[in-house]
Amino acid sequence: MAKKITPRDKDYSNWYLDIIREAGLAEHSAVKGCMVIKPYGFGIWESIQHELDTRFKATGHTNAYFPLFIPKSFLSKEADHVEGFAKECAVVTHYRLKADPINGGVMVDPDAKLEEELIIRPTSETIIWNTYRNWIQSYRDLPLLINQWANVVRWEMRTRLFLRTTEFLWQEGHTAHATADEAIAEANQMLHLYADFAENFMALPVIRGRKTKHERFAGALDTLCIEAMMQDGKALQAGTSHFLGQNFARAFDVKFQTKEGKEEYVWATSWGVSTRLIGALIMAHSDDEGLILPPTLAPIQVVIVPIFKTDDEKELVYERAHLLKNSIKEMGVRVKFDDDEQRTPGWKFAEHEMRGVPLRIAIGPRDVVNGTAEIAQRDTRTKHLLPFNDLIAQIPALLDQIQQGIYMKALKKREDNTHFVDTWAEFQTALKAEGGFIYAHWDGTTETELKIKELTQATIRCIPINNKQEEGKCIYTGLPSQERVIFAKAY
Amino acid sequence: MAKKITPRDKDYSNWYLDIIREAGLAEHSAVKGCMVIKPYGFGIWESIQHELDTRFKATGHTNAYFPLFIPKSFLSKEADHVEGFAKECAVVTHYRLKADPINGGVMVDPDAKLEEELIIRPTSETIIWNTYRNWIQSYRDLPLLINQWANVVRWEMRTRLFLRTTEFLWQEGHTAHATADEAIAEANQMLHLYADFAENFMALPVIRGRKTKHERFAGALDTLCIEAMMQDGKALQAGTSHFLGQNFARAFDVKFQTKEGKEEYVWATSWGVSTRLIGALIMAHSDDEGLILPPTLAPIQVVIVPIFKTDDEKELVYERAHLLKNSIKEMGVRVKFDDDEQRTPGWKFAEHEMRGVPLRIAIGPRDVVNGTAEIAQRDTRTKHLLPFNDLIAQIPALLDQIQQGIYMKALKKREDNTHFVDTWAEFQTALKAEGGFIYAHWDGTTETELKIKELTQATIRCIPINNKQEEGKCIYTGLPSQERVIFAKAY
Repeated sequence: MAKKITPRDKDYSNWYLDIIREAGLAEHSAVKGCMVIKPYGFGIWESIQHELDTRFKATGHTNAYFPLFIPKSFLSKEADHVEGFAKECAVVTHYRLKADPINGGVMVDPDAKLEEELIIRPTSETIIWNTYRNWIQSYRDLPLLINQWANVVRWEMRTRLFLRTTEFLWQEGHTAHATADEAIAEANQMLHLYADFAENFMALPVIRGRKTKHERFAGALDTLCIEAMMQDGKALQAGTSHFLGQNFARAFDVKFQTKEGKEEYVWATSWGVSTRLIGALIMAHSDDEGLILPPTLAPIQVVIVPIFKTDDEKELVYERAHLLKNSIKEMGVRVKFDDDEQRTPGWKFAEHEMRGVPLRIAIGPRDVVNGTAEIAQRDTRTKHLLPFNDLIAQIPALLDQIQQGIYMKALKKREDNTHFVDTWAEFQTALKAEGGFIYAHWDGTTETELKIKELTQATIRCIPINNKQEEGKCIYTGLPSQERVIFAKAY
Repeated sequence: MAKKITPRDKDYSNWYLDIIREAGLAEHSAVKGCMVIKPYGFGIWESIQHELDTRFKATGHTNAYFPLFIPKSFLSKEADHVEGFAKECAVVTHYRLKADPINGGVMVDPDAKLEEELIIRPTSETIIWNTYRNWIQSYRDLPLLINQWANVVRWEMRTRLFLRTTEFLWQEGHTAHATADEAIAEANQMLHLYADFAENFMALPVIRGRKTKHERFAGALDTLCIEAMMQDGKALQAGTSHFLGQNFARAFDVKFQTKEGKEEYVWATSWGVSTRLIGALIMAHSDDEGLILPPTLAPIQVVIVPIFKTDDEKELVYERAHLLKNSIKEMGVRVKFDDDEQRTPGWKFAEHEMRGVPLRIAIGPRDVVNGTAEIAQRDTRTKHLLPFNDLIAQIPALLDQIQQGIYMKALKKREDNTHFVDTWAEFQTALKAEGGFIYAHWDGTTETELKIKELTQATIRCIPINNKQEEGKCIYTGLPSQERVIFAKAY
């Protein structure tokens, strides 16, 4: 089965797509740029959703739901926002079809044209802040801490499964505050929540940083982000948290009465992560045999595969397998007994390896007699024959070990591919030879940022927070700089 | 606070809308026909989702996600289907906006016209069966048991919050089977799953039935449904489960190889419930004081309201309240200690009553001294002063009693408003005087069904399953009939 996967060093891009296909995660749909998220891929998204949702609620947020449609005029209310989003929107112009008398089938009914066109939300700041105007009158109504799980549409010309699709699933938090400080604290809180989630749940080491002015979200005063490194050394933005200042409150006239009786505009944040995280997960951890999943997130953490020939053997093995399954389940571990009789053990081994199940237990009749079973670890591809009770007892520690191992491996990969350069020549060499994250001085201007991008395709991924302050010179212009920023090629 | 709610007997329709507004469940958005589901309303939807999702998974289904967009041509592939849905669709014709040089703001870019228009899914049979064609080759790939949680759009001219909105949230199950029998069994299973969920989780008594040919889902061979009665005697369809035969497999050419090596079209079902259930919930249980929620579903099951004047009293009361909260929480009950100091106890009493919190506990300093607390039951509006420990111990039983009480009340209401009539005169009188469910004989023709609807606005809600077979005459034509069907006016 692993033969169906192109090795990473041969063609990284095809390797990625091969894993998605062979592990049954997603596929292109009949609609250009839109994907179908298949059950196993959606199971991973459900894990991500459940964990994030729990963390959002623990920090005082509640969910709500706002319309899919945004009136066209809303988009132009915040000047920067329209600049950033207007070019890539799906537009609804009609609300009815009718029978096509000439060609058969159906046609758009020209009599059913909307007075004002509707845009499918590319993000919901506008419709939400238009709603908040009626929800917020006084400081007593603040803070408003709301999140939405939704589908959004951005018309993309070049798409790639999970990483960039026309329609994708995400969550978008939209909070309203009485002061700038409180909004800034919220944006920071969510950045750290995302980073902690990425590192401890997805085993994905990330850099916490701030975007340059040029890379900011359209309408934000400040965009915080987490940046991860993929195995090919490219960067992937895994989540963003924006301090929006009073921009959307001004655009939609959302004012509140302060404790002191004054009227002020409300302060805002927004923050989001999307199904893109699944792309990051695949590209950060997997190998040439298939997917590798961190145990915290894996829909199935342990799979038990029975091996037998005769009916007597089957009875023996199944009895032991059920015992094993129940013991493992009691520990709160997600375990599956794969008793599909239409597939061979060999087929199952390859299949579960492809799907990244962290631990696989095989039991045959001899194991039952000897009181043993074989346990195989997906990340290291090591196997151990263990006494039955030891094996059960060790499962939590093994899962934990895999979780740490995957994280440490990704962290080491990032460290090995992180470079500090001081000259333009070093920068170009590092970028060409090794890629990865390049820490370098920059003069702080958008002009230089764009010039470097034009010449090398590398962008400033972020200015790390708590960055070391040091004197230096911009690698391109030689102008003075107080800190290094991270350059990389990115997805 | 309750004064803000129009009494039911004065204006049932306004009573419904008043509760939605005052309990903070939902509101109209800036987009005609689309609603904003507010945090408390969405919390109810999350309860519903969680419970249904657990039940779907327990019966072997998994979730997946299919595109929001459907190519226009797909809709015409199943002849009946297009007839039922084509008239009410949102149509995407363009994929880009641009700056409007004349009026300012943005305009649709005429150069960005789609070659084939895209429809926002009104339901997903077409795009899903087009996908299944690649997923199903052999009997080994069957059954395919997939569900999707999604937003859908049906362009409605007259909307009402939760009951009929242009965009709504739902789940749609789409299963594929090797035999007609298996698909029929699946459709039946889901009908009973919905009915059990409605009765035991939502405390909503329902009739399990079958739609007439005329009322069937567009493209189905058989539509099963659950029908509930609202407090005004009107019927509300709360869920449907369809046996689709081979219609969609034929339309999208989905064949499989049988065990015997023959090639056959696949058999299908689809089934769904939506945010409409929240409308049913409100209209079935609530009273003139606000929402009444079944405890199983209530986001907050018990609220504790502290009463105090001085700081010393506050300390005393808070300490006891925290103890109480922890003891209740340990029993697995969803409890909230309402320590908001910006609101008075009186305000909180009214607020939690409005929001339908099943149990409210009030504690003042005298209670702490006496070792008592007052507990109030939302559904019956009764109060009891109980010793502290008795009160804690009784909470599970009280919640259970409320759950049963609400269900029995709704069931009695339905029974009191159910009539058996044998003549056209009786039918008209019953419909005019009392409404409710009317069991009557019908000759089985669509012609008669439509005529009765035209004359009385009553429709055939369903033919109950396991219906008693008896000789009778159609109330309208006098033609022979073997069983009674249920007529009612409906939402």
